[in-house]
Amino acid sequence: MSRTELLRDFLRVRQLSEKMCEPLTIEDYVPQPIEDVSPPKWNLAHTSWYFETVLLKTHLADYECFHPEYAFLYNSYYESFGERWKRPQRGHLSRPTVKEVYQYRQHVNTHMEHLIETVDDSQWSTCKQLIELGIHHEQQHQELLLTDLKYILGVNPVYPAYLRPVEISETTVPPAEYVPISGGLYEMGHHGDAFAYDNEFPRHPVHVADFKLQNRLVTNGEYLEFVEDGGYRNFEFWLSDGWTALNNEHWEAPLYWVQQDSEWYEFTLRGLQKLNRSAPVCHVSYFEADAFAHWADQRLPTEAEWEVAAQQTQLSPKSGNFYDDGYLHPVPLHTKTPDDSSSLFQMLGDVWEWTNSAYLAYPGYCKEPGPLGEYNGKFMSNQMVLRGGSCATSADHIRLSYRNFFQPEKRWQFMGIRLAERC
Amino acid sequence: MSRTELLRDFLRVRQLSEKMCEPLTIEDYVPQPIEDVSPPKWNLAHTSWYFETVLLKTHLADYECFHPEYAFLYNSYYESFGERWKRPQRGHLSRPTVKEVYQYRQHVNTHMEHLIETVDDSQWSTCKQLIELGIHHEQQHQELLLTDLKYILGVNPVYPAYLRPVEISETTVPPAEYVPISGGLYEMGHHGDAFAYDNEFPRHPVHVADFKLQNRLVTNGEYLEFVEDGGYRNFEFWLSDGWTALNNEHWEAPLYWVQQDSEWYEFTLRGLQKLNRSAPVCHVSYFEADAFAHWADQRLPTEAEWEVAAQQTQLSPKSGNFYDDGYLHPVPLHTKTPDDSSSLFQMLGDVWEWTNSAYLAYPGYCKEPGPLGEYNGKFMSNQMVLRGGSCATSADHIRLSYRNFFQPEKRWQFMGIRLAERC
Amino acid sequence: MSRTELLRDFLRVRQLSEKMCEPLTIEDYVPQPIEDVSPPKWNLAHTSWYFETVLLKTHLADYECFHPEYAFLYNSYYESFGERWKRPQRGHLSRPTVKEVYQYRQHVNTHMEHLIETVDDSQWSTCKQLIELGIHHEQQHQELLLTDLKYILGVNPVYPAYLRPVEISETTVPPAEYVPISGGLYEMGHHGDAFAYDNEFPRHPVHVADFKLQNRLVTNGEYLEFVEDGGYRNFEFWLSDGWTALNNEHWEAPLYWVQQDSEWYEFTLRGLQKLNRSAPVCHVSYFEADAFAHWADQRLPTEAEWEVAAQQTQLSPKSGNFYDDGYLHPVPLHTKTPDDSSSLFQMLGDVWEWTNSAYLAYPGYCKEPGPLGEYNGKFMSNQMVLRGGSCATSADHIRLSYRNFFQPEKRWQFMGIRLAERC
Amino acid sequence: MSRTELLRDFLRVRQLSEKMCEPLTIEDYVPQPIEDVSPPKWNLAHTSWYFETVLLKTHLADYECFHPEYAFLYNSYYESFGERWKRPQRGHLSRPTVKEVYQYRQHVNTHMEHLIETVDDSQWSTCKQLIELGIHHEQQHQELLLTDLKYILGVNPVYPAYLRPVEISETTVPPAEYVPISGGLYEMGHHGDAFAYDNEFPRHPVHVADFKLQNRLVTNGEYLEFVEDGGYRNFEFWLSDGWTALNNEHWEAPLYWVQQDSEWYEFTLRGLQKLNRSAPVCHVSYFEADAFAHWADQRLPTEAEWEVAAQQTQLSPKSGNFYDDGYLHPVPLHTKTPDDSSSLFQMLGDVWEWTNSAYLAYPGYCKEPGPLGEYNGKFMSNQMVLRGGSCATSADHIRLSYRNFFQPEKRWQFMGIRLAERC
Repeated sequence: MSRTELLRDFLRVRQLSEKMCEPLTIEDYVPQPIEDVSPPKWNLAHTSWYFETVLLKTHLADYECFHPEYAFLYNSYYESFGERWKRPQRGHLSRPTVKEVYQYRQHVNTHMEHLIETVDDSQWSTCKQLIELGIHHEQQHQELLLTDLKYILGVNPVYPAYLRPVEISETTVPPAEYVPISGGLYEMGHHGDAFAYDNEFPRHPVHVADFKLQNRLVTNGEYLEFVEDGGYRNFEFWLSDGWTALNNEHWEAPLYWVQQDSEWYEFTLRGLQKLNRSAPVCHVSYFEADAFAHWADQRLPTEAEWEVAAQQTQLSPKSGNFYDDGYLHPVPLHTKTPDDSSSLFQMLGDVWEWTNSAYLAYPGYCKEPGPLGEYNGKFMSNQMVLRGGSCATSADHIRLSYRNFFQPEKRWQFMGIRLAERC
Repeated sequence: MSRTELLRDFLRVRQLSEKMCEPLTIEDYVPQPIEDVSPPKWNLAHTSWYFETVLLKTHLADYECFHPEYAFLYNSYYESFGERWKRPQRGHLSRPTVKEVYQYRQHVNTHMEHLIETVDDSQWSTCKQLIELGIHHEQQHQELLLTDLKYILGVNPVYPAYLRPVEISETTVPPAEYVPISGGLYEMGHHGDAFAYDNEFPRHPVHVADFKLQNRLVTNGEYLEFVEDGGYRNFEFWLSDGWTALNNEHWEAPLYWVQQDSEWYEFTLRGLQKLNRSAPVCHVSYFEADAFAHWADQRLPTEAEWEVAAQQTQLSPKSGNFYDDGYLHPVPLHTKTPDDSSSLFQMLGDVWEWTNSAYLAYPGYCKEPGPLGEYNGKFMSNQMVLRGGSCATSADHIRLSYRNFFQPEKRWQFMGIRLAERC
Repeated sequence: MSRTELLRDFLRVRQLSEKMCEPLTIEDYVPQPIEDVSPPKWNLAHTSWYFETVLLKTHLADYECFHPEYAFLYNSYYESFGERWKRPQRGHLSRPTVKEVYQYRQHVNTHMEHLIETVDDSQWSTCKQLIELGIHHEQQHQELLLTDLKYILGVNPVYPAYLRPVEISETTVPPAEYVPISGGLYEMGHHGDAFAYDNEFPRHPVHVADFKLQNRLVTNGEYLEFVEDGGYRNFEFWLSDGWTALNNEHWEAPLYWVQQDSEWYEFTLRGLQKLNRSAPVCHVSYFEADAFAHWADQRLPTEAEWEVAAQQTQLSPKSGNFYDDGYLHPVPLHTKTPDDSSSLFQMLGDVWEWTNSAYLAYPGYCKEPGPLGEYNGKFMSNQMVLRGGSCATSADHIRLSYRNFFQPEKRWQFMGIRLAERC
Repeated sequence: MSRTELLRDFLRVRQLSEKMCEPLTIEDYVPQPIEDVSPPKWNLAHTSWYFETVLLKTHLADYECFHPEYAFLYNSYYESFGERWKRPQRGHLSRPTVKEVYQYRQHVNTHMEHLIETVDDSQWSTCKQLIELGIHHEQQHQELLLTDLKYILGVNPVYPAYLRPVEISETTVPPAEYVPISGGLYEMGHHGDAFAYDNEFPRHPVHVADFKLQNRLVTNGEYLEFVEDGGYRNFEFWLSDGWTALNNEHWEAPLYWVQQDSEWYEFTLRGLQKLNRSAPVCHVSYFEADAFAHWADQRLPTEAEWEVAAQQTQLSPKSGNFYDDGYLHPVPLHTKTPDDSSSLFQMLGDVWEWTNSAYLAYPGYCKEPGPLGEYNGKFMSNQMVLRGGSCATSADHIRLSYRNFFQPEKRWQFMGIRLAERC
């Protein structure tokens, strides 16, 4: 990729973060209702901190930091970059103001433009890699920005909408079918020259047995049956840690489901809406996904199964419901897919799909030395892998080999379910 | 007081709350860094909720609430008024926006004006009492608004200033003298017809022994000697609960003291300033006040001693450093007081003075029935009494019989120290 | 008191601690179900540690400690004596065994006997004071030993009994009467030469208004009316902190009350027994005592009122139900008292009576220097005063001026209620 | 297996639990210093509860429970068997006494003997399976009994020994060599008719790449280099969750390592001993094992690699250091192994070896229905697999396919490290 192309990408992604925030009030930028959820203005500043810290301070001569305290305030979790403001206290800060954060972004953009245009060829290859990573990093934070914002609005009893509702008709989705996939020795992991995170490497052989995978995502209607069948009151379906989480957190349904006068509603980025039973269920934890699978006498696929199956289908990001499509919520199958009965639908977009695989190193994986080793490698414990991207992911951010990962009790991302046949 | 006079008072106090907020950015209205500290916009809305709930809904025919959720959002702790948003989560809410809160205030003001002018004479006496209480309630929240805001700005590593600094010269304050007060049977508690809280009643006899009281407040310079003498590292000076608090909270000096390059600074509403050694020390807990007294081989006065002494001095609120004076910080003695060597100085204003008395009922006190019984009476455990008002108190809010109360570990109010002679 | 007399007292009290433990199994000596409750073997060792630390190590030449770690293990809270085993972890230790603890006691007794007989006259006065304090200290721990043991047995679903039941007939107790006491200037605090704790000094004048005090303790039957009237579900009766405690701890009745098949039982040191409605209620917190008083439209007396009233009655410890009487539980009034209608009954023994006074210094009180200053003085915050001793107190340990103190949420002591007339 | 053989096995294992407890004092049976660690008497009772609940109550006509409360007290985590005493409070109970627990065991044994001899043939197959599971269950609790006891003794500052020390000479262990294993498609999981837990099924194909495995366990000496190189102060080696655990728990070395006068000691079941540098390191968490591997520029093997490697070696439990060998601590390599340079040593016994695999279902695994489904299946989240058994495991309890599992921060089992070559 040329300097010009990379600069264009850089600016495009940087502008998107700001465009996403246009509907926000100033107040929306500030709160942190739970530790996981960062204030939107923190997300905007932190992604700028990345470029300032990793590129401008190191590769741009005479660069002067925008503000001496921002390195402390906007370092997320990089021990390599020293002390930082404690994560649970991000919502304690009224200053810098939103305006100052935008000025910071502009300052970083201007100097990045200068760096991209002028940095010596000898440093270009290094810079190029770091900039690409920074772009993907910002795309990740765009998804977090949307899901964090959804949480901030969703805990609020006045249920403010981020955007106006769009009409999604509730049509019937045909029953899920189980598509058989032949077992054998496959390869998984990233290949090719395009960008990928270090945790997608190395591509390596993996053996899977014959298995069958649902041809579409589990719907709200199917999940509601589980809820109404007492699924949240029967320990038999649940992992021990899941049963503990359910009781401690008083789970009775997916996050954002609200029951009013015996009618189910769902809080969305477009406000509180009647639950659409044909749309994919979302905002369930791994524990809920696994419990639902047990109740249905099925199981979750492993990440190897998911990737093997995905490789066999003619998939392109274009076919999924991504941020670019503008729904900002999973949509029922019929709105986007063809009628081929042997196909796997909704593999990309709509919701991240929980797999039954722990987030661990691929054989031969080596954590990168230095700060970038802190990007992915240090989180390889107590997290489960999710695959496929969501309606809050940018279409050009996803790959078949992309490994997302969260703790099994987390629910605030667009997380959903696709079943595999049990035995 | 006539309807016109009361309306004028009402509007004056209501406007002051808003004037106090003029220097704030929108972002400053939102955070709640600790449970004690409410977001400024919550303070603005809660004081309006009082008038809406206690007066408009009950005494104004056909009144329509501004918003159906506000009764839930802005009830502080009144069990009588039903369920409410949990206190530690006040900072989780971006909406209602600041603008909406100001519209709410305007809505309440307009209808209150209407009520005051039109309510039937038969209800006037009741309404008058409730309005007076509401005005004093709002004045209390004005002080909280300033101290909460100070905390919000003070935890921020960029140390934003609420107002511009004013020049306070650091002059020498003469050594404190101990003014002897004769013991005997006195009366304490409110008398007269002016407004007072129920906890100041009934006026009752109290016996105090001969005692001696410092003629001025303890200064930063004196307190610094305690700090530099290892006062925070020697358990001997401390109550057991205080020593635990010190260790858990890592106290090494009063709240807002900051040491940079072996120089002491103090965060004030006018920004980070060099510690003024002749100004009264503030933002110390009861535990620190008591430990300082032990270190100095003295003690804190009881609230009876304080009130008896105050009665003997010709004091008027005019003589103190209050919110009205505009410093918003305690000031050295010499700036305001005469040279009479037998007088007690700084009894009113500057800082609330910790007494060695628990906040308990006066003999004969009866908690009021209904919601107003929740105003003061239900807090009579585990709190200590403070007297005299502070630089964040309005001058017309204070009385000699005024009983302020906080838990002994609290520090975020303008709390200071006056010693009594020990034995 | 002569050396011989003091030695006799010393040995008598030391032996009583061991006699109290005779009914225990070895297992009973070990657990610590909550932080407040120390394992019985800890109580036995700690009281020995006092004598070893304060007397033997300082005043007995060539004394060798029984074990080098015991100074660390059995220091309770004396910062002056250095580091110590953390309080919440006292129940984590299986060793020293019970047998070793008894050997430690014997070792200390033997050397104390030697010290009492041989210490130089020049040191005798100091030693005498410290030994007297140690004897009273051990008596306090005897009461704790019984109440801690009761908790250990009482949390156990098999409800083991410490001793066999004794028959207490449930007879009717006449309605409580309010005995009027004239107000005026009185004296309170210890006088005379007999032993008293430093916190009972100095005797000082105090003014009380006319008041009326119940002539007997509140009974289980009266308290049950409060419970059955929804007292634990109505916030109006409760202090704010009390309502929080009730909800956090799920209080529905006094500690040790158990409802089985709609019948009320009470766990006692003599096993689970049907609730005796004529016996004094016990194991209630200050919050419950205060709520009961509100429900009954009365109030709790202050400690000054209690002491003034007690002075006016012809009381002797003999008249109360103490440990010496062997019930180990409060007993109904009729079993012990005369028919004089103007008398105050049950002022001593049965249960410690919550007063509406915070545990604070008397005017003129000075904390003793050195370790003994840590005995009483450092606890003067967040605690309420209780008066009169209980059925677990030794008769010769109590005084009219005795100030017991606990945090207002504590319930595991024999704590009960006597009301004063409200207004 | 015949009834007679099974009865013999049953009695042998039941007796071993009691033999293990012979060195205990009564006090040692009671404490629970952390939630993970159960009191020894709980372990003894719980294993009896299994037989009573699963066999006697269901399959022995007219069986009468030993005590009506034991089903409540000694159910560990089986939701299927109803309410139970809360796990963190197991150490709160002094009763049942140790003697009563032994009587309970005898009662269960007698009736189990009767059941085994008399149960109808139609039920025998079911009973046989449940009894076999019960025997293995009790063997697991024997290992827990020893490690729990070690913790109870090890937190005690007097460091009591369970058994007398035995002499283990500290000889030099030759440097570890990396044994190459060829990659390819292998099978893993249990095969054959012998007993195995459900989580070892089904045997299934797995692909592993070429890898190299250390031929022996990591020694204390090697681990000490890591400690002395600042391994516990350098975040670079640690997973993020591990670094958090290290800081929260103040880890500075493996559990039970004690530094006195700059000499390292290790608490063992035979008392505090000088650290033997040639013995395998033990009591390290997964986080420590993983950090050590990073420091050494190597990695931990996966469980598939471990099992594949183990299958290629001629291993028998006889060759390992198990409970039966009587050391109760890992021993240096030279004491037990031959000189074959291509062999893998210490694969069985000494310490459980942390693998880099999460504890998850094998492909095709189905949780058993009913209570037994709660035995293993419900714990498949947030745990890592360990392999090979330890010096506290009975030799006849281990299998190559045996999957042990613990959370990555746990240290109180005999857990150690074997490295694989990194890339």
